Amino acid sequence: MSQQLRERIFQQLQTIRLIDPHTHIVAQDPASHTLADILGYHYYTELVHSAGVPREQIEGEALEPYERVRRLLSRFPDLSNTVQYSWFVEIARELLGFEGEQITAGDTDTLWQLAEERMQAPDWPQTVWQKSQLDAVFLTNAFDDPLEGFDTSRFIPCLRTDDLVFHLDQAQVRQRLEEATGRSVQDTASLRDALGALFTHFAAKNGRACAISLPPDFAPTRLSQNRAETALGDVLRYGPEAPDIQKRALAHFVFWTLAEYCREFHWPFDLMIGVNRRVYEGGVYQGQDLFDSRVSLIQYRELFNAFPQVIFPISVLASVTNQELASYAWIFPNVVTHGHWWYSNTPAFIEHDAAVRLEAVPRNKQIGYYSDMYKLEFALPKFNMYKRILAKILAERFVIERKWSEEQAVELGRQILRTNVERIFGFASEHP
Amino acid sequence: MSQQLRERIFQQLQTIRLIDPHTHIVAQDPASHTLADILGYHYYTELVHSAGVPREQIEGEALEPYERVRRLLSRFPDLSNTVQYSWFVEIARELLGFEGEQITAGDTDTLWQLAEERMQAPDWPQTVWQKSQLDAVFLTNAFDDPLEGFDTSRFIPCLRTDDLVFHLDQAQVRQRLEEATGRSVQDTASLRDALGALFTHFAAKNGRACAISLPPDFAPTRLSQNRAETALGDVLRYGPEAPDIQKRALAHFVFWTLAEYCREFHWPFDLMIGVNRRVYEGGVYQGQDLFDSRVSLIQYRELFNAFPQVIFPISVLASVTNQELASYAWIFPNVVTHGHWWYSNTPAFIEHDAAVRLEAVPRNKQIGYYSDMYKLEFALPKFNMYKRILAKILAERFVIERKWSEEQAVELGRQILRTNVERIFGFASEHP
Amino acid sequence: MSQQLRERIFQQLQTIRLIDPHTHIVAQDPASHTLADILGYHYYTELVHSAGVPREQIEGEALEPYERVRRLLSRFPDLSNTVQYSWFVEIARELLGFEGEQITAGDTDTLWQLAEERMQAPDWPQTVWQKSQLDAVFLTNAFDDPLEGFDTSRFIPCLRTDDLVFHLDQAQVRQRLEEATGRSVQDTASLRDALGALFTHFAAKNGRACAISLPPDFAPTRLSQNRAETALGDVLRYGPEAPDIQKRALAHFVFWTLAEYCREFHWPFDLMIGVNRRVYEGGVYQGQDLFDSRVSLIQYRELFNAFPQVIFPISVLASVTNQELASYAWIFPNVVTHGHWWYSNTPAFIEHDAAVRLEAVPRNKQIGYYSDMYKLEFALPKFNMYKRILAKILAERFVIERKWSEEQAVELGRQILRTNVERIFGFASEHP
Repeated sequence: MSQQLRERIFQQLQTIRLIDPHTHIVAQDPASHTLADILGYHYYTELVHSAGVPREQIEGEALEPYERVRRLLSRFPDLSNTVQYSWFVEIARELLGFEGEQITAGDTDTLWQLAEERMQAPDWPQTVWQKSQLDAVFLTNAFDDPLEGFDTSRFIPCLRTDDLVFHLDQAQVRQRLEEATGRSVQDTASLRDALGALFTHFAAKNGRACAISLPPDFAPTRLSQNRAETALGDVLRYGPEAPDIQKRALAHFVFWTLAEYCREFHWPFDLMIGVNRRVYEGGVYQGQDLFDSRVSLIQYRELFNAFPQVIFPISVLASVTNQELASYAWIFPNVVTHGHWWYSNTPAFIEHDAAVRLEAVPRNKQIGYYSDMYKLEFALPKFNMYKRILAKILAERFVIERKWSEEQAVELGRQILRTNVERIFGFASEHP
Repeated sequence: MSQQLRERIFQQLQTIRLIDPHTHIVAQDPASHTLADILGYHYYTELVHSAGVPREQIEGEALEPYERVRRLLSRFPDLSNTVQYSWFVEIARELLGFEGEQITAGDTDTLWQLAEERMQAPDWPQTVWQKSQLDAVFLTNAFDDPLEGFDTSRFIPCLRTDDLVFHLDQAQVRQRLEEATGRSVQDTASLRDALGALFTHFAAKNGRACAISLPPDFAPTRLSQNRAETALGDVLRYGPEAPDIQKRALAHFVFWTLAEYCREFHWPFDLMIGVNRRVYEGGVYQGQDLFDSRVSLIQYRELFNAFPQVIFPISVLASVTNQELASYAWIFPNVVTHGHWWYSNTPAFIEHDAAVRLEAVPRNKQIGYYSDMYKLEFALPKFNMYKRILAKILAERFVIERKWSEEQAVELGRQILRTNVERIFGFASEHP
Repeated sequence: MSQQLRERIFQQLQTIRLIDPHTHIVAQDPASHTLADILGYHYYTELVHSAGVPREQIEGEALEPYERVRRLLSRFPDLSNTVQYSWFVEIARELLGFEGEQITAGDTDTLWQLAEERMQAPDWPQTVWQKSQLDAVFLTNAFDDPLEGFDTSRFIPCLRTDDLVFHLDQAQVRQRLEEATGRSVQDTASLRDALGALFTHFAAKNGRACAISLPPDFAPTRLSQNRAETALGDVLRYGPEAPDIQKRALAHFVFWTLAEYCREFHWPFDLMIGVNRRVYEGGVYQGQDLFDSRVSLIQYRELFNAFPQVIFPISVLASVTNQELASYAWIFPNVVTHGHWWYSNTPAFIEHDAAVRLEAVPRNKQIGYYSDMYKLEFALPKFNMYKRILAKILAERFVIERKWSEEQAVELGRQILRTNVERIFGFASEHP
């Protein structure tokens, strides 16, 4: 009975049209052109590499797309247990028309051909978009993105700020900032001014959020004006050779200033907490980052208290941080739970973490899921994975154990998948 | 089949009369007088506040009880997913005679009236007590509580010691201590003497335990006499302006002395580990505390070794500490697992944490649950939540997977819900 | 249906012949001689001690085996909930011919007699070996073990190195090293040479791995030659009185050198991460160790990067570290998940941790289980516990949710239970 109930709820969840609140889609070119665009996703290259294939054999400019696909698929048997493999099977079946249940090296040509036929169609991005029930997707835009050439009501700009906070010691980053804003950064006043110009630019293009990923040891704090001035002075003078303590102080100043602008522009500030970059420098592209799970939201205490008007949709990289996230969202009005990120985006973690949130965090403060995708084709299998787990939780923990009706359960699903995204990111009912 | 088995075991667990080993009940006035006493529980005010209601609108002396209830219930739809909401529904149905399955703002007057009628009855506390299967509840008494005016065989005194350990720098706390004990605190000898007088007073009133909540960074240690004397001297001289290092040293001295008295009086020392106080200072009353899950029981190594004769019933705030708790209880004879505390008192955590303990800790060393309630009405829904989860674990992990009989499973439940509480806290068979 | 499916998969997993990749078996005397050898396992003595029996009553040279068994079994009712108790029931039923479902003190004589009869048979070790489906077991050999007197194709030598890394300040350890290798340790060159001689000796005896257990604060790093020389000089001069910083530096040098030899000899280096030794000094033999769960694999970043050619099968003591383990194994080609260790070797943790790995780590990089046993009789119940959980995961998460065939599911089980062990530890198909 539970199995059929889950299936019925899942089918109801499938009728919800989605706004995907965090992706890495390139708005001007959102979908894949060949199967290599699908299999080039770092989840596949890093797993195949981890399974034993030297990275030189599966990445690099010189590698032809077909050959890349062939090499990757030849090692897919070693990944067949992973959920990432199951995403690919679902793409192949639902979007490409593949009919097998498993994929092996022997399917390479069939899959390549199917992808060629479908992806060549000029309306392929639109086909994927429709099949994936998408109404809009949030982007991850470099701060100097001109935001031109796309429909910003469907591709929502989001100001990504890692470079501004952590790499302002690099001359190239400062130069990009000056070119994007027409401001010369010489002191904290002009830096603040330049940052404000970015917000103004993004806001004019329907930008709706600021976002950043943060290492486990980051603990935001407000600096005095003098302290910030000294830090910026040293960084401008010495660049990457500036003392670490000054670079860190500048990071704090920029981060805090971004929060101030979020307050001014009424934007949520997406915090993605816990990643260590380049832990495995021999890894494939985008497959080098890991984490230290010893992180606590207590590090954000000063921030959450200082900005009661700013909503912080928070993603945590480690599932062991999920209880803190649920508890902080239960107490702080401005803390919102946000999806299941990266290494926590696998079923066993999602099931546990989502159940915890659904039992303890007010329902209007939960954003259920985002795809984090680079290519449109991944919305469908990733959201389906989430919705199957959500259907299981709703069936077992709400309908059976708490005697909710199926309609009530589906309505809770709708709220965390859609309604909350609209309200938190300031959409009117433009996507009915 | 599993569902029916769970239900049968639950019904058997329902026949067990309870001693609730940790509450905040006021013995002289244990039950609610209006619905506002129920909905004023911090779980509701903090969730409603978190959902978006300014705290000024839901708390404060000037707020009439009915109006408070009206405002809180008007936002209950935002909490309808939470387990805390389900506790309220169960109170409304089982204790107040409400017949709906869900509660909305439209039920305000009905619920208010039902509560008025029932709570006015002079035997309301006794009615709740009986329906909740209670034989006794432990209190949380300020150290200077006179412990007068109630039946100490049903309301068991428990000496709460947070103020003594952490706030002895405050003149008011020292004054309370001197007034309660008739001792002037001038050095460690007189302080030790005063603390002993508290134990003597509590013991004379059927006191059976000492309790304290502790921040994540606390690591008890034994100080030398000289070190303690210096610390106390500074704290007496400078009060709150004493150096932190002296205040911390004094905390260690007082804590260690309490453990020595627990040994002398044969009392368990309840440790509630992991809370950071006042993290969100803008929060509602009792809704400001959170935690840093980076805590380890290794911090208590010296204590557990130094006091083999003292039983330490331990609660941990973060579920990620539960494996350490289970492991330390599996190794140390004097470490006992104690309930599911606060942010870990939601079903997904209870299910995981209780299963872990039931599989690895000797059954005579587990105290299954306490309600932590402030008003008697909460024992029923909270214990029921726990017993439903316990029934699930017993059904799936013991009856089905390990082929236990249902009687054996229920007997295990009885032991951790009742028998162990009696033995660990030194009851004879006075509550048959 | 799910229950029957689980049972069918379990029965298929039961046909797999096993290589147990980590045990403490004594090759020359692998099985038990009396029931006291079974019940003397630290899991039983420490649980009985924890349940309330002074250690003097259950251990010590003077205690007769029968009396020891009698005393331990008399307290078994307090452990009847634990999974360790269920291992004993399974041994009694499957290996000793006991017919009851539960074991109480009243069964002492029956069990003792059954054990006497069976264990006296000269082929008892072989009987246990066959019933347990074993083809080979890895040993845990002291570095100066002569490795004589047993069949190294069934009892695989494994070089255990805790003493070398952490206790080289003890004259006795250095003396053992010098006697085992014929080398006098006077500087880093001669120390390196002595370590190499150990590898050569073990390799000549079919040794296939190096292993070590590590405390939570260990973070391996490469030292300069000068730094190592200074550290070794001080340790040779002052022994245990050498400054901690020098002892720690020497530990780093020895550890790093072992990794270099693993690279040279193409051996996996088993890391067992997270144990604090002698936390409870009043505990029974082997029942004194616990842990601090605040540990991260980021501490091994330099090591994993420096030795891409060395496979590191990693065990973590705390389940909260399992997500890091799965993630590091998903990214680093040389990191392999290795069993469920000690305090994480109970069903609730195994189920969660194994599911996480099966969903995210390439299937060729997972070693499902090892028994860690001291006596042969424990392979059967421990592997059965694991295989029942594995069957549950395969049934629910692969056959039902991902529509795998039962054959595919069993094949995944076979790979992590057997095939991977063969490949990772360099077996040819000598155990068909």
